[in-house]
Amino acid sequence: MVGIIMGSQSDLPIMEQAATFLKSLDIPYELTVVSAHRTPERMFDYAKTAKERGLKVIIAGAGGAAHLPGMVASCTTLPVIGVPILSSNSIDGWDSVLSILQMPGGIPVATVALNGALNAGILATKILGTADEKIAENLQKYQDSLKDKVLGTVNDIKNQHPNHFDH
Amino acid sequence: MVGIIMGSQSDLPIMEQAATFLKSLDIPYELTVVSAHRTPERMFDYAKTAKERGLKVIIAGAGGAAHLPGMVASCTTLPVIGVPILSSNSIDGWDSVLSILQMPGGIPVATVALNGALNAGILATKILGTADEKIAENLQKYQDSLKDKVLGTVNDIKNQHPNHFDH
Amino acid sequence: MVGIIMGSQSDLPIMEQAATFLKSLDIPYELTVVSAHRTPERMFDYAKTAKERGLKVIIAGAGGAAHLPGMVASCTTLPVIGVPILSSNSIDGWDSVLSILQMPGGIPVATVALNGALNAGILATKILGTADEKIAENLQKYQDSLKDKVLGTVNDIKNQHPNHFDH
Amino acid sequence: MVGIIMGSQSDLPIMEQAATFLKSLDIPYELTVVSAHRTPERMFDYAKTAKERGLKVIIAGAGGAAHLPGMVASCTTLPVIGVPILSSNSIDGWDSVLSILQMPGGIPVATVALNGALNAGILATKILGTADEKIAENLQKYQDSLKDKVLGTVNDIKNQHPNHFDH
Amino acid sequence: MVGIIMGSQSDLPIMEQAATFLKSLDIPYELTVVSAHRTPERMFDYAKTAKERGLKVIIAGAGGAAHLPGMVASCTTLPVIGVPILSSNSIDGWDSVLSILQMPGGIPVATVALNGALNAGILATKILGTADEKIAENLQKYQDSLKDKVLGTVNDIKNQHPNHFDH
Amino acid sequence: MVGIIMGSQSDLPIMEQAATFLKSLDIPYELTVVSAHRTPERMFDYAKTAKERGLKVIIAGAGGAAHLPGMVASCTTLPVIGVPILSSNSIDGWDSVLSILQMPGGIPVATVALNGALNAGILATKILGTADEKIAENLQKYQDSLKDKVLGTVNDIKNQHPNHFDH
Amino acid sequence: MVGIIMGSQSDLPIMEQAATFLKSLDIPYELTVVSAHRTPERMFDYAKTAKERGLKVIIAGAGGAAHLPGMVASCTTLPVIGVPILSSNSIDGWDSVLSILQMPGGIPVATVALNGALNAGILATKILGTADEKIAENLQKYQDSLKDKVLGTVNDIKNQHPNHFDH
Amino acid sequence: MVGIIMGSQSDLPIMEQAATFLKSLDIPYELTVVSAHRTPERMFDYAKTAKERGLKVIIAGAGGAAHLPGMVASCTTLPVIGVPILSSNSIDGWDSVLSILQMPGGIPVATVALNGALNAGILATKILGTADEKIAENLQKYQDSLKDKVLGTVNDIKNQHPNHFDH
Repeated sequence: MVGIIMGSQSDLPIMEQAATFLKSLDIPYELTVVSAHRTPERMFDYAKTAKERGLKVIIAGAGGAAHLPGMVASCTTLPVIGVPILSSNSIDGWDSVLSILQMPGGIPVATVALNGALNAGILATKILGTADEKIAENLQKYQDSLKDKVLGTVNDIKNQHPNHFDH
Repeated sequence: MVGIIMGSQSDLPIMEQAATFLKSLDIPYELTVVSAHRTPERMFDYAKTAKERGLKVIIAGAGGAAHLPGMVASCTTLPVIGVPILSSNSIDGWDSVLSILQMPGGIPVATVALNGALNAGILATKILGTADEKIAENLQKYQDSLKDKVLGTVNDIKNQHPNHFDH
Repeated sequence: MVGIIMGSQSDLPIMEQAATFLKSLDIPYELTVVSAHRTPERMFDYAKTAKERGLKVIIAGAGGAAHLPGMVASCTTLPVIGVPILSSNSIDGWDSVLSILQMPGGIPVATVALNGALNAGILATKILGTADEKIAENLQKYQDSLKDKVLGTVNDIKNQHPNHFDH
Repeated sequence: MVGIIMGSQSDLPIMEQAATFLKSLDIPYELTVVSAHRTPERMFDYAKTAKERGLKVIIAGAGGAAHLPGMVASCTTLPVIGVPILSSNSIDGWDSVLSILQMPGGIPVATVALNGALNAGILATKILGTADEKIAENLQKYQDSLKDKVLGTVNDIKNQHPNHFDH
Repeated sequence: MVGIIMGSQSDLPIMEQAATFLKSLDIPYELTVVSAHRTPERMFDYAKTAKERGLKVIIAGAGGAAHLPGMVASCTTLPVIGVPILSSNSIDGWDSVLSILQMPGGIPVATVALNGALNAGILATKILGTADEKIAENLQKYQDSLKDKVLGTVNDIKNQHPNHFDH
Repeated sequence: MVGIIMGSQSDLPIMEQAATFLKSLDIPYELTVVSAHRTPERMFDYAKTAKERGLKVIIAGAGGAAHLPGMVASCTTLPVIGVPILSSNSIDGWDSVLSILQMPGGIPVATVALNGALNAGILATKILGTADEKIAENLQKYQDSLKDKVLGTVNDIKNQHPNHFDH
Repeated sequence: MVGIIMGSQSDLPIMEQAATFLKSLDIPYELTVVSAHRTPERMFDYAKTAKERGLKVIIAGAGGAAHLPGMVASCTTLPVIGVPILSSNSIDGWDSVLSILQMPGGIPVATVALNGALNAGILATKILGTADEKIAENLQKYQDSLKDKVLGTVNDIKNQHPNHFDH
Repeated sequence: MVGIIMGSQSDLPIMEQAATFLKSLDIPYELTVVSAHRTPERMFDYAKTAKERGLKVIIAGAGGAAHLPGMVASCTTLPVIGVPILSSNSIDGWDSVLSILQMPGGIPVATVALNGALNAGILATKILGTADEKIAENLQKYQDSLKDKVLGTVNDIKNQHPNHFDH
């Protein structure tokens, strides 16, 4: 249901975070490399056939002059989530962020934070959850688990700083 | 089905572009002002009741230190689309872009370009289109109309520069 | 008298510097984790009850799209000091600085430098010192001690470069 | 009780917003020009005698390489609020923001947004409110009035877009 | 011999400067609109057939998330010159500059300055001049004419400031 | 046929990538150090005699305030490719990028990405390929080899994630 | 004694401010256009003969990729003051500032603020004043006049805000 | 003759480079720590007595919100050279660069590159050389030695790449 693509194999350690999240919620996905610049035909094919292959959402990550998310978005009506990646020789990630975010009117890309592949996975799930109550419930559980994790650290800190309240 | 909110009435001229697009495709929406900083309770209520009121997607626009999209996202499982707005006293829009885009892991906001409310409307429609084939078809027609508009300008330019090909 | 909160346990090594300063001047404080995005209700409760719990000033540190200081400020009349934190995947700290600094008219956050938790502790003390002469005197002593430390390094350098004056 | 100073007369249109706010809450203030670079002795005198003249808080605004807030802070134990001002020949305000915000450890400046003199006035009032319940109550009323103003615009928009809810 | 393309008709006032230069040196060119995002197939066709249609160099201008130059470069062995254009809603041109400049290893784009279409025309001519001595001579004359224009302003200024040398 | 120059010996590890590419396609080149600031006469001589020595293209790399590419371009009609280099004490590469890219009208430099010497070598080859069909064919083979490399990683990833398609 | 040069006649309105200051203190100067990129030989001649023509200091202003100050500095032992100029198509002045400021070790340029030609004139005078007591005295008078101007505005503001002290 | 000051002992490894250069040319200097923010009186005294103590030029280095160079310049007619230093918690050096460079009209600081203390030493020497022919000659020798060093690396590279010319 979700296609995860990236411009280069070097993006895999980041992009796997999207896959791991989807797997944890039992959402089917495919994951592969599609380079806008080195395999343009493959990119076009991927985007144009995505819907008929049953994909609902595409997550595309790329670094530097990151054209993959925007170009894929131009060839499909599916929502495309863009993940800017901080690659080597990037200028602090600005190139990737701006190449993905600043799409012209008509062709949106849903951009997440630099290296934000986890959030891309969650966002894809939120999109699927708009039409699938079971997924929406799982998302609510996930959001609750985040809260629990924070509350756990509250106790950790209280133990480390036992007298900070009555200092 | 789509909630359009903005941090201040001054954001209306931009945010109306999302409404206009949705209207053109006959997608029901509501549009109002919700300020994260000046009406925090209203924001919480809006976000927490959004789903039960039948919303599927929320579009939130804000300028400067733009906390509205991220805070709404923290209180709902619906996908939230953030529109950075270039407000007066903004530092060239960077404050708004980064406050919306750089959300921490766990709470994504689907960020579009600076002042990109039209694209927010299209993205919301793409999300709805994942579960509604009629909407997806309308999106395809819209995407085709963009192409036609470009091809129209091709002819305009050919007329303005009649002999540029055989110069 | 001072509440020190942070968006994530990973901010603790920085935020402890505020606590250490307050402790050195015997100013009571509490320190805990409150996440705007993962525990929004806890944040609201914290901010809304801060004054009645006897707090005079709140120090809030956060990284990335740092909404904690501004959102807390929107729910209390207490002065809120914001500490931008350079977290991993931050874009060089700009996201955190701008999300905290560029608050809209009506809801100020007293922003200090990137990772400037020590200065946040001092600023909180200065605020308390406006109504407590003893604290103001201690601040004066602290400021004098800074001067003494600099003068100490003057002598160090003179010893390392013994003949630099009459070179 | 509040000293408002600015580096140049050209900063007055911005800095008056702090004065107007203080006046609206009946908080005594003084307002004048003190240039760190053109009248350094005057700046030192101003800062060193501020406390004995009865000031509790100093608001200092400056543009470009804005040294006034930080230098004043180095000569007093009073809290100093810095207002970065977008002056002509500024590089988009970055120079002023960074010169005020990025103070070294030991000497904090409570920095507000670019051209944020209104917020500086409110922050000064919040500081005074930590020891004066009447001021704190007035601040609460002001914060409530902000909410009311937003709710007013909600109705305006509902009237402009009468059928947007049931579109 | 030179193909001039642009992402949108609104880029024409800038991109015409390249055409005007080529015309002044009698170098044949074609000029049209090709949008990477709205007419992706047209872009692919344009790029893939460019060489067989007799083009030697392609000049591509685009604003915002400017993918046109890089995508065209990925589909041809011809040198592609990219012109970043300062469009409305651009973030001061940074988006366009970085989307064009920061191409990954393997697919270069010869980037010129923001709005630098004139320089793109000259660069295309320099490329043609590597194999055509007549063109190289014309370039030398053009470069000499620049020098003459500067020397003309030297005299202008001398007349305006008649005694500046012997002041 | 190609001159590769750099402002300092410390640029060699980057600039050698251009040489390695040219060597792989059997294109003759020379490689040396020419400093705009420390050997200005040598730079002028190099640029002015480049064409008569048989060079067709010059690749110039430099860091910081990088004047070498632009100054060389001002003294020759040959196309000059500029490589911004991330040197120590650079401000994240921005100084080098902007000093090379933002040339005034009349004197273009074909700028590639930060540390993009490989792309400079490819671009030089593309320029030579406009007049030499053998070189153009080799470029096509190189571009095909990039595609093959990507397709290889596709298989790698499929093996690492064997069941990702039918998850 | 002071040479004022600029890269283009369009820089004259800014650069004249340096001349006006020098004239006000009766310091001889010459003012002309020297383009690093369009008249490189003229630039070299200017720089190499500057000292023998009796110049003590050179002020060089330029915009965009501003190579003039640094290149002149590479050809003379005289101190060179660089004035970054905000020209059209500049990226907010960053290109000019960084091209002038970030000179490599060995060849300094004394850089002043964006459009800071007045300060360049003053700095040149300060340099001359190191060896000429009369000039140093005039500078002291100028610095005193700045103070007097500020004190004048203090009175202006006191009159505009007559009761601000005893509000 | 030259005063070298820095805001903190941690700036010493950079600032020593200025001292080392001056020593190599036998130019007397003094070197010490003067903090604008922690020892403001010491800074004022230093600046105000600099001229009568026989200094001709002051070199001032500082990081972060770097007020030292500008404040010293406001209290003396001597030329002040500012060295922006990349300190910890700096935002990539931008704070220091802009706080030193962007001085208001009337009070110039001769700014050199980030961490450019060597160039500050050379610039101070150039200033002294305007009135001392012996120093000017030594500068010429130094500039010649830079050229020789570059030419040495030319030979190194020729040996490493023996056949690069006739490849």
